Amino acid sequence: MADARSEPVGTIVDLRSDTVTRPTAGMREAMATADVGDDVYGEDPAVNALEAEVAALFGHEAALFAPTGSMANQIALQLVVPPAHELLCDADAHVVTYEIGAAAAYGGISSRTWPAVGGDVDPDVVAAMVRPDGYWAVPTRAIAVEQTHNRGGGGVIPLDTLRALRRVADDAGVALHCDGARIWHAHVADGVPLAEYGALFDTLSVCLSKGLGAPVGSLVIGSAEQIERARFIRKRMGGGMRQAGVLAAAGRYALAHHVPRLAEDHAKAARLAEAIAPFGLLATTVRTNIVPLDLTKASLDAHALAAAARAEGVLVSVLGPRTARLVTHMDVDDAGIDRAIAVLTRILTG
Amino acid sequence: MADARSEPVGTIVDLRSDTVTRPTAGMREAMATADVGDDVYGEDPAVNALEAEVAALFGHEAALFAPTGSMANQIALQLVVPPAHELLCDADAHVVTYEIGAAAAYGGISSRTWPAVGGDVDPDVVAAMVRPDGYWAVPTRAIAVEQTHNRGGGGVIPLDTLRALRRVADDAGVALHCDGARIWHAHVADGVPLAEYGALFDTLSVCLSKGLGAPVGSLVIGSAEQIERARFIRKRMGGGMRQAGVLAAAGRYALAHHVPRLAEDHAKAARLAEAIAPFGLLATTVRTNIVPLDLTKASLDAHALAAAARAEGVLVSVLGPRTARLVTHMDVDDAGIDRAIAVLTRILTG
Amino acid sequence: MADARSEPVGTIVDLRSDTVTRPTAGMREAMATADVGDDVYGEDPAVNALEAEVAALFGHEAALFAPTGSMANQIALQLVVPPAHELLCDADAHVVTYEIGAAAAYGGISSRTWPAVGGDVDPDVVAAMVRPDGYWAVPTRAIAVEQTHNRGGGGVIPLDTLRALRRVADDAGVALHCDGARIWHAHVADGVPLAEYGALFDTLSVCLSKGLGAPVGSLVIGSAEQIERARFIRKRMGGGMRQAGVLAAAGRYALAHHVPRLAEDHAKAARLAEAIAPFGLLATTVRTNIVPLDLTKASLDAHALAAAARAEGVLVSVLGPRTARLVTHMDVDDAGIDRAIAVLTRILTG
Amino acid sequence: MADARSEPVGTIVDLRSDTVTRPTAGMREAMATADVGDDVYGEDPAVNALEAEVAALFGHEAALFAPTGSMANQIALQLVVPPAHELLCDADAHVVTYEIGAAAAYGGISSRTWPAVGGDVDPDVVAAMVRPDGYWAVPTRAIAVEQTHNRGGGGVIPLDTLRALRRVADDAGVALHCDGARIWHAHVADGVPLAEYGALFDTLSVCLSKGLGAPVGSLVIGSAEQIERARFIRKRMGGGMRQAGVLAAAGRYALAHHVPRLAEDHAKAARLAEAIAPFGLLATTVRTNIVPLDLTKASLDAHALAAAARAEGVLVSVLGPRTARLVTHMDVDDAGIDRAIAVLTRILTG
Repeated sequence: MADARSEPVGTIVDLRSDTVTRPTAGMREAMATADVGDDVYGEDPAVNALEAEVAALFGHEAALFAPTGSMANQIALQLVVPPAHELLCDADAHVVTYEIGAAAAYGGISSRTWPAVGGDVDPDVVAAMVRPDGYWAVPTRAIAVEQTHNRGGGGVIPLDTLRALRRVADDAGVALHCDGARIWHAHVADGVPLAEYGALFDTLSVCLSKGLGAPVGSLVIGSAEQIERARFIRKRMGGGMRQAGVLAAAGRYALAHHVPRLAEDHAKAARLAEAIAPFGLLATTVRTNIVPLDLTKASLDAHALAAAARAEGVLVSVLGPRTARLVTHMDVDDAGIDRAIAVLTRILTG
Repeated sequence: MADARSEPVGTIVDLRSDTVTRPTAGMREAMATADVGDDVYGEDPAVNALEAEVAALFGHEAALFAPTGSMANQIALQLVVPPAHELLCDADAHVVTYEIGAAAAYGGISSRTWPAVGGDVDPDVVAAMVRPDGYWAVPTRAIAVEQTHNRGGGGVIPLDTLRALRRVADDAGVALHCDGARIWHAHVADGVPLAEYGALFDTLSVCLSKGLGAPVGSLVIGSAEQIERARFIRKRMGGGMRQAGVLAAAGRYALAHHVPRLAEDHAKAARLAEAIAPFGLLATTVRTNIVPLDLTKASLDAHALAAAARAEGVLVSVLGPRTARLVTHMDVDDAGIDRAIAVLTRILTG
Repeated sequence: MADARSEPVGTIVDLRSDTVTRPTAGMREAMATADVGDDVYGEDPAVNALEAEVAALFGHEAALFAPTGSMANQIALQLVVPPAHELLCDADAHVVTYEIGAAAAYGGISSRTWPAVGGDVDPDVVAAMVRPDGYWAVPTRAIAVEQTHNRGGGGVIPLDTLRALRRVADDAGVALHCDGARIWHAHVADGVPLAEYGALFDTLSVCLSKGLGAPVGSLVIGSAEQIERARFIRKRMGGGMRQAGVLAAAGRYALAHHVPRLAEDHAKAARLAEAIAPFGLLATTVRTNIVPLDLTKASLDAHALAAAARAEGVLVSVLGPRTARLVTHMDVDDAGIDRAIAVLTRILTG
Repeated sequence: MADARSEPVGTIVDLRSDTVTRPTAGMREAMATADVGDDVYGEDPAVNALEAEVAALFGHEAALFAPTGSMANQIALQLVVPPAHELLCDADAHVVTYEIGAAAAYGGISSRTWPAVGGDVDPDVVAAMVRPDGYWAVPTRAIAVEQTHNRGGGGVIPLDTLRALRRVADDAGVALHCDGARIWHAHVADGVPLAEYGALFDTLSVCLSKGLGAPVGSLVIGSAEQIERARFIRKRMGGGMRQAGVLAAAGRYALAHHVPRLAEDHAKAARLAEAIAPFGLLATTVRTNIVPLDLTKASLDAHALAAAARAEGVLVSVLGPRTARLVTHMDVDDAGIDRAIAVLTRILTG
């Protein structure tokens, strides 16, 4: 957790993650003037409005505000998988990677994984993994996918694949959950309406503080019955905030102003990818705002690359010894991208 | 979760809890102008400043911001009690009552309780309950107290009692945790410096969104080593927020402006208590901002009282069939207290 | 875990616990000739017969064999208390003392305790602790009692108290569980039919390897639906044994031959108690086969007493710095009791 | 759990599992004459002898007796993977399939899986899945393999593969566990000394009640420090039995008499496989005592096959809609195999 802030602000092009965005002036104004109440009592107007809006966007009955995408995912998993039952997901999924073991440790949820293949999924592989209810084996209760896929380089699962997975889930009588922290990017990249995504899943989580630029906040989406239970789980997880409307107001602003502009971030990522492609280091085709680097054949490893870039004011995420990631977002403009391209080209040419 | 907001604002005197306070203009200004960053990267200046301030106030090495008091408590408990080890606390403690089973369900923490006696504690009773490490029985690893005590009617544990508990903990080699959501009230009521409280505990949780009036936020306080581990646990609990500085800024404002004024809330509670005393329904002596009612001998039960008061614009908390609670706070002024006294007197006389 | 076997067998009077009994010749014969099968397939005739017999004895629909009393209790608790719900029991109960945190760590079960008072219970105290279902607090789902009570000195809860607790449970809509590891002793001491006990509880655990002298085995007792679920839980806990009939046969033999003879063990305990009474060290009145010593006023502590007695071939359990326990059982005859009395009298006089 | 016993004994050829074996006369004699004690006190001579023998066989410091292979595995996993840390294994492993979610529900252990490929493992795939300690992701703490592999058709992982996995574990600083319920079969099939297997793993579980024919019992094997901790975990899991020596004596007898004879079971399985091979339904090459059938191309599904065989007195396991399993063991002789071949040939031809 080195502090990027010790370097002069403005000289830094921060491509580590789209979580680093700071609230805009308009967003801050929305927060400062929000009408709020005690959300644990269900009385925060801004939270209630946000929850209704997001549920409607995805065509579900209800939604619940949560402080983070991790909590939104974990609440959803606890909704659809009882303790000592099974979740299937890919081996690189955020829910079994970056949520620090919460599904098992807090939800008692057993997990098996299919091989991660750049964000896409083979429905037949998933179908073959499902275990039915019965005396002998841990029964599968849910399948989770991630749209877009973080470690999968921002990959977008095609609508047809999702429909096939829905059939797998229906045939097996299990739930289908979408970790939709960046589902907005899939929506913008593929032009699939959010409600069309919504119709395919039993539960979804969506995040306002990544690409959309809100400071804090995610939502779990599901049926009214699920969201009523989710309220208890949220309290147990320590997510029952009081005047959360100050955050929800920022989220509503983000929804109103920052969705279509994600296309700009995708374009910036495409420019980065185009510049890096000649070095043969792109881990996958770039579809959204994430540029994943596979440095297996590079002359320097991920830590060396990140250190060299940082020395020139460009921040990059290290995902593994030989994997790194660039993420475009609201707070990096075209000049920043130009600068990053120059710096990275110089380092990789090295 | 009936919506108090359906009744005209301004006509309502909300004495249900001090959690219902809305941020003041100054606090909103602080939020709107806060310099923020990504706190999961440890780069939010407002959060870092708040954490340093709170650690210093209590004389500890470090502190960590969390979205709620429940999460702050649960992080602390997970720090000091490994799974399958034991926590001792009183039978009415927030940590085994209002945190919905989180200590057991998420922390695997076994608990035994001593009888709740209005917020105070008998150190000898606690000492006799401690179980040592060994092959046969679940070993005690921590003792938790609540200062002031919510279900104990805002009672303040005397400093001498706390010192005796510290000796019990030291003799047994176990940790002592303080659920200090309202420790500010104890500090103001008894004049004990916060650092003096801090010196007695291995870990504390404190809350900014109850009496202090911030919209959202609590902190866990402990050693540098503990807080480093706490950062992982917070992430696993889903509490790793990004630009949390917008909340921390409100918390810093609350600390700077709202601590001494708690004396006003105590005075308001004393006025309420004085008016109710003649009816013989006070559950305990009122020391801080909570007025607990024992309606065993009243002509109406807690739900009837709350309904009758609500009909006249006064909101009261129901804690049990025959127990209710009035809580004073920033958003109820003297006129509100006058009105509450009039309404309650009429109901209780009737 | 010092090895008592290093001292010459025959010279030792082992009063540490009734768990130390060795199978008799008749019991070994029953084991050697048992018709057995694969109990995980439900095909072990001896296990099936034992389960049917025990269920019938207590007037319940079904029972399930388990390797230990701890597992039988934990299966029962997992049956009646979902994760993040609450169990009430006394602070010295086996389920929150000697089962090493399993209820919390494996069942996610939150527990609050009433003060242990020698094995008896005040139903009003229990009634006041029950928390109803609802949004705010962890809901109580079960009350557990221990009959007879191990740390309570083998105390027997009177039938009227149990009936009052049944009413408390019914009024609150929660389950009542009996840790009946030594319920046989209560049955013999108070003359209450086992079926009369059985009728008062939703679930019971009973043990064959304590006073009854079988080498291994306990049972969970409940409804057919519960025992079907219990079969899964047992498998998850690692208790699904295969040809368990070799153990069940010993258990059936114990049930057929060793219940009424517990009166002899009670008489032996009464003789021990009578001899120790003049020293003023009996912790409670002795009702069954346990003689609990409170050494607070003695000239030596529990470890010193145990060491001195061991030096003379008498083994005693240390429960705490100043508490010790003598337990009578099948493998200590009258001569052994005489010898123990002589040794202890000498030590305590000394 | 249909009861095979309702059909006349003797006419049945039970190929469902090697768990169905009944103790032999010699084994029963060993049980009937065993010198036993209280194993919770560590004083059962037969258990102590068995634990020492098994530890020595595998060249480890210590071993612990447990009632089942599932408990032995779960104790080992809880030894090497703390809650909220990660286990890697194959997607068909017993530990994430047939142990009903215990690793997650009781151990809080997060799991990711590599694709099951008939019992063998690709060390490079495993190496690529390991996640290092750190702030962001759940850290891998152990890799588990199954030797021989149950769902993998009794496949034997070659010694070179295991050595490569040992290097993967060493490079990553994680533990390597062997679910060795049927490691005896691998030892007999490949001629690898048990100590050579033992040297490759941090912990192993081995089972006495499968191929070796003991009625009940498994062991966890590891270092002295691990086994001391294992003793607590076993008690918490409800596996601390008292005079377990009656079972351990059977286990010692099995070790002394039934290991080399596993070659006969392998030969019987090979005969079965040879007879079935022409139908093209063998899921894998048969190496040990398991004959796995893949009925995808058969005219009848697994349930139909099992029902048809049962009608003629041959019992077969159904593992999935189109997968079934035949297992040879001590209690099926050559005549039984002849009969099974005749019955299955008739059904598959039909």
